[in-house]
Amino acid sequence: MAQSIDVELMAKHGYTIEQLMELAGLSVAASIASEYPKGKVVLCIGPGNNGGDGLVAARHLSHFGYQPRLYYPVQPAKDLYRRLLLQCQAHGIAMVADLATEVKACDVVVDAIFGFSFKGAVRAPFDEALATLRAVDKPIVSVDVPSGWDVELGNTLGVGLSPDMLVSLTVPKLCAKLFAGRFHYLGGRFAPPDMAKELAIPQYPDSSQCVRLL
Amino acid sequence: MAQSIDVELMAKHGYTIEQLMELAGLSVAASIASEYPKGKVVLCIGPGNNGGDGLVAARHLSHFGYQPRLYYPVQPAKDLYRRLLLQCQAHGIAMVADLATEVKACDVVVDAIFGFSFKGAVRAPFDEALATLRAVDKPIVSVDVPSGWDVELGNTLGVGLSPDMLVSLTVPKLCAKLFAGRFHYLGGRFAPPDMAKELAIPQYPDSSQCVRLL
Repeated sequence: MAQSIDVELMAKHGYTIEQLMELAGLSVAASIASEYPKGKVVLCIGPGNNGGDGLVAARHLSHFGYQPRLYYPVQPAKDLYRRLLLQCQAHGIAMVADLATEVKACDVVVDAIFGFSFKGAVRAPFDEALATLRAVDKPIVSVDVPSGWDVELGNTLGVGLSPDMLVSLTVPKLCAKLFAGRFHYLGGRFAPPDMAKELAIPQYPDSSQCVRLL
Repeated sequence: MAQSIDVELMAKHGYTIEQLMELAGLSVAASIASEYPKGKVVLCIGPGNNGGDGLVAARHLSHFGYQPRLYYPVQPAKDLYRRLLLQCQAHGIAMVADLATEVKACDVVVDAIFGFSFKGAVRAPFDEALATLRAVDKPIVSVDVPSGWDVELGNTLGVGLSPDMLVSLTVPKLCAKLFAGRFHYLGGRFAPPDMAKELAIPQYPDSSQCVRLL
């Protein structure tokens, strides 16, 4: 379903992936700014679109006065991601190699590793990253779907994360019913009215890019 | 200078025009939502990037509960603008042909006709559009530079608008010193820290995409 939403937005309504990702990442940063005080944020970036949302969020967090750093072990050559990384570098956002050390010194961890299309086994180096994050005592913010979860069934593999905040994008996925953290936000405010009605997307307040659901 | 800012953001820091325009247009819509109650907004769209910012603003205004309509008499075939228009159409944003009639029934007019690169004479059909807008008794919101103004010298031709609100993008242009309306906002929150320091860009509050300067 989530896949078909993005396809409809781009193929039918003319959106580009750059636009959707910009608004999605901005809404993740805005959700974080709504609940956590300014501090050090380590963003764990996967190799796909969920990671792209994370790269955008890192840049906006920098604008909002946070100190973001990137754990980004697999960097695809795709122009989209290369550009998003360049933008982060222009903002002086550092890359970190040792996730386990880094999370000890941070205030919030962002999980932008896997999104709604995750299926099957977790491959290296993300198996180790998930193990590190499962053991961490800092609040984790998951983008759209907690990494390691099935988009519908949740943490069936037992390797998934237990985030403190979930930021659902466009519309909560089925697995969001199983979210047991403190803060559930919705972001990615770009569904046209017909789609918003069909999907029963909640109202956002005023000009906010995110809305708290729980 | 404004031209060189965009060039630096795109060529050196990896931004795409879609990203910059999305954040610029969003900030225009957020500025409007900060000062004017929800109502009917006619957006006058020029054939260049200033018009593109206006198309993005129209879409976000629709999300914020306003009723935007587009006066868009010259529609370039460029993919960027074609897509932005498609997105507006997905939001049910109507096109209007008769600007003079339309402005009588609206609450706010957005001037996204010409931006910082405007020079020389105003060509048809925008000469007539500017004449209509000079006579209008509704508040006008200008994007970046009031249409008909020189980016540095202001309304030297005498054909320029007198907006109630000016939303400067990235940094106020020289002509903003001559702005005599009620609300001066800054939007387009994307300059990396080095650039922000060099240009003395004011601080934005929290996660806001716009800041009131005056």
